[in-house]
Amino acid sequence: MAAETWFNPVTLDKGLFCHLPCCVSQLGHRPHGGELLCCWAWVHQSLSKACRVMALRASDHSQAAMNRLKEKVLTLDTMNPCVRRVEYAVRGPIVLRALELEQELRQGIKKPFTEVIRANIGDAQAMGQKPITFLRQVLALCIHPDLLNSPNFPEDAKRRAEHILQACGGHSLGAYSVSSGIQLIREDVARYIQQRDGGIPADPNNIFLSTGASDAIVTVLKLLVAGEGHTRTGVLIPIPQYPLYSATLAELNAVQVDYYLDEERAWALDVAELRRALCQARDHCHPRALCVINPGNPTGQVQPRECIEAVIRFAFEEQLFLMADEVYQDNVYAEGSQFHSFKKVLMEMGPPYAAQQELASFHSVSKGYMGECGFRAGYVEVVNMDAAVQQQMQKLMSVRLCPPVPGQALLHVVVSPPAPSDPSFAQFQAERQAVLAELAAKAKLTEQVFNEAPGIHCNPVQGAMYSFPRVQLPPRAVLRAQELGLAPDMFFCMCLLEETGICVVPGSGFGQREGTYHFRMTILPPVEKLRSLLEKLSQFHAKFTRQYS
Amino acid sequence: MAAETWFNPVTLDKGLFCHLPCCVSQLGHRPHGGELLCCWAWVHQSLSKACRVMALRASDHSQAAMNRLKEKVLTLDTMNPCVRRVEYAVRGPIVLRALELEQELRQGIKKPFTEVIRANIGDAQAMGQKPITFLRQVLALCIHPDLLNSPNFPEDAKRRAEHILQACGGHSLGAYSVSSGIQLIREDVARYIQQRDGGIPADPNNIFLSTGASDAIVTVLKLLVAGEGHTRTGVLIPIPQYPLYSATLAELNAVQVDYYLDEERAWALDVAELRRALCQARDHCHPRALCVINPGNPTGQVQPRECIEAVIRFAFEEQLFLMADEVYQDNVYAEGSQFHSFKKVLMEMGPPYAAQQELASFHSVSKGYMGECGFRAGYVEVVNMDAAVQQQMQKLMSVRLCPPVPGQALLHVVVSPPAPSDPSFAQFQAERQAVLAELAAKAKLTEQVFNEAPGIHCNPVQGAMYSFPRVQLPPRAVLRAQELGLAPDMFFCMCLLEETGICVVPGSGFGQREGTYHFRMTILPPVEKLRSLLEKLSQFHAKFTRQYS
Repeated sequence: MAAETWFNPVTLDKGLFCHLPCCVSQLGHRPHGGELLCCWAWVHQSLSKACRVMALRASDHSQAAMNRLKEKVLTLDTMNPCVRRVEYAVRGPIVLRALELEQELRQGIKKPFTEVIRANIGDAQAMGQKPITFLRQVLALCIHPDLLNSPNFPEDAKRRAEHILQACGGHSLGAYSVSSGIQLIREDVARYIQQRDGGIPADPNNIFLSTGASDAIVTVLKLLVAGEGHTRTGVLIPIPQYPLYSATLAELNAVQVDYYLDEERAWALDVAELRRALCQARDHCHPRALCVINPGNPTGQVQPRECIEAVIRFAFEEQLFLMADEVYQDNVYAEGSQFHSFKKVLMEMGPPYAAQQELASFHSVSKGYMGECGFRAGYVEVVNMDAAVQQQMQKLMSVRLCPPVPGQALLHVVVSPPAPSDPSFAQFQAERQAVLAELAAKAKLTEQVFNEAPGIHCNPVQGAMYSFPRVQLPPRAVLRAQELGLAPDMFFCMCLLEETGICVVPGSGFGQREGTYHFRMTILPPVEKLRSLLEKLSQFHAKFTRQYS
Repeated sequence: MAAETWFNPVTLDKGLFCHLPCCVSQLGHRPHGGELLCCWAWVHQSLSKACRVMALRASDHSQAAMNRLKEKVLTLDTMNPCVRRVEYAVRGPIVLRALELEQELRQGIKKPFTEVIRANIGDAQAMGQKPITFLRQVLALCIHPDLLNSPNFPEDAKRRAEHILQACGGHSLGAYSVSSGIQLIREDVARYIQQRDGGIPADPNNIFLSTGASDAIVTVLKLLVAGEGHTRTGVLIPIPQYPLYSATLAELNAVQVDYYLDEERAWALDVAELRRALCQARDHCHPRALCVINPGNPTGQVQPRECIEAVIRFAFEEQLFLMADEVYQDNVYAEGSQFHSFKKVLMEMGPPYAAQQELASFHSVSKGYMGECGFRAGYVEVVNMDAAVQQQMQKLMSVRLCPPVPGQALLHVVVSPPAPSDPSFAQFQAERQAVLAELAAKAKLTEQVFNEAPGIHCNPVQGAMYSFPRVQLPPRAVLRAQELGLAPDMFFCMCLLEETGICVVPGSGFGQREGTYHFRMTILPPVEKLRSLLEKLSQFHAKFTRQYS
């Protein structure tokens, strides 16, 4: 992909605008008729067509060959329209522009900043967090078993590695595993869940390992999708949401049914709002599932137990399959906040809920204290799923063979960390606590600095890894954004990036109430860097407000 | 999933048959009206429903709760019908039965064999192949960089690890990479392709790393799918095929257009047959893509250059997007056979083909000499793809964040192995050659032993990792299979498994000409084990033939 076909605010401001629907939708703006002209993409395409014409003229060619010149097989017009509708702001044009800026900096091009700071994505280790030693020791031993003879590895790490390798085909991480994941590790996960949930049993046969939580979420959504026209499957998702949900529903041609979290009450989930969304949706689709993200992404709230009970009761009464995205279950910081798993609450509610309400709960090794995003490991536990459907899920997963085995090995350690009697216990605990304590401090710092800035309002970051502050944007900035065919908060974030090197994601990529503007920023940079970043961002907002007032 | 809901030949023979369409289709049989009764699944479901009724009776409950008893949200009837139609024989019911048998052996249950041999899947390390030392050294260093100070690792492995870590976010494999893969590694891949193709340039921007080749194949198919009814996208695939293709087309609701390879001419691909398939397909769908697997899976043929040229000319004239599955490019054994990449042939054909024919070529670290299946790493190179579509592909991949980073690191070493001047060169070469030489010997052995057996015919295994012999099945066996609602070769393979512990996949899972029967067996077990396996299998076939004659 040529870099010049992407959004560039400089050329934009010179009046060279974006015509391609793909570009416009990528920028988080849904055009309503009036579209702009993407000069660069057009120039690029015309030039390459001219080159093809010349190449053809220079050679003997048949009529068929000339006909081929008219059109590629696969174009924006002929490609899968569902894929075209997909949007994924977390890695959208703003991040591509950040990559370009980094390259320009490396080439010595002068910028008003010396470094691009990617606060767009929950990628702890990219922000300098060190891996947990024990995790990496066990994994290195599994990868290169010659190290089992090395005196430089603790005994418990060796024991673990041997245990994992015993459960692998050919005693190697290089063999495929069973499609639902190594049996031993699914048993570990079941034990972990049972312990987390105060002894409520978990069945390894209900646990499917996956390529990150995303993979499992997509799989469950795939099972749910059916129908056409008025009977198309509708799925309730929170607004703001993590855009994996909207992207997957677009790809699957399902109907996204928005329910709004209440910003005034720290992004609370209100059953009355669920009911409103459901009733309206029933006019045009068949709502069959309800997704909840707890702790919230991008919103950072942690749901109280009563709220979870109310959501379960609602899902039960309304015949909705429940999907609980609980990948931030270890990331709870606020005093008085506590993580309650949907599974535990459901089971404690007893009959008829416990024995019948269908639930899928997702977890990941990418978040928590370990932040091992690159390994792409996660799992789903399904509860009360129809046995035949569960077989279908297993079949569907088998087409992709198996989740990455190194990630499965990592998951083993995450769900069964060193015990107090193990040689690695003390160091493991110290490293884990240090990460979580620092995250808690950064959550507090973020809320504090933002709320001191006029025109920025930030709810408490009770959990997860993000703040999602609301920013006031002056009417002239909104107008200017509209002229450029951009969502106003996209315009703000693009200007912020160009001037400060700070990369955050506009609220329009997650969804927000009409007329409000937000951005998502991670709390992951090291404390001092985060402080300076928060201050720079607040100052930029003040300047931006003056500029467009 | 309860084990007892799966196919069990013992209960089958007692007259307890399979009613559920999902079970029947899983078994590779497409029912034509008459369906059988799966007693176990029915008993299981009835019992669990009874339990739910009792649970409800024991508690206070509302009318809504009673209503819920009627039906789960997600059942076979309400789930995604496209997913239900998916079949994937390589990991189908025969493999699940093999798992059960292994468990029964461990429990001390007596069987006519002492070990289950999984010759169903191309999983080299599970069959005892040792990982290539240099690959694992580099990876262990990346995983646990403390080892960079160890004297037990060669200098070139350390240099590589440092090089890879430099290119990772936060210098860690635990950070996400760019969605299309680490830039450095995409550049390595481009250099590798350029060298493979005699200097024809490859552009890193056209290379996308993926979670195994399967992931990239599914992504490209997703882009291609569009239309409804008569304009539904058709995709030409070989028969026999690797069932990832049929499974993905079923899931995407695209039309599978079969073209038959010519078994009498060592599974040759004939353009006249492509034309027949295409013409017939145009009556009911819009064929837009042509998939070729070279070297062939499950068929093991290696395409001569003229054949590739003819296929390219055909695709060009007929406006078909070409997909070249070239994951076995390093696995060519037969004298006179040589791998020609579609990219190289296309480029050497010059205009108008070279500048216009759209092509996607797939590769993987799971096969070749390394066999690192568990790491789930691969890539696709796209050629002449529309620039805007390529952006859409990048966007689609970004929703799943990134391919597993350890796999990306492994790919780096695979595409840029040690040079002759490097300390690890000699050992690397020796290990690589040993694996490939042994595979070549096993390919020959397989062909030889099978062709000595009456009623078994095996084409030469020119490449890849499988034999796909044709077996004669006596008419009474075919009848018996039909009574059981099974494809005849599924019945043969199930009996083989129960009696010998040998797990192979019936030809019906890959597709075959009506009235012919095959199975796919890997050539991966160690030579002596393979020999005994081939002999046992031939003897079993003879006995089976007597039994049903």
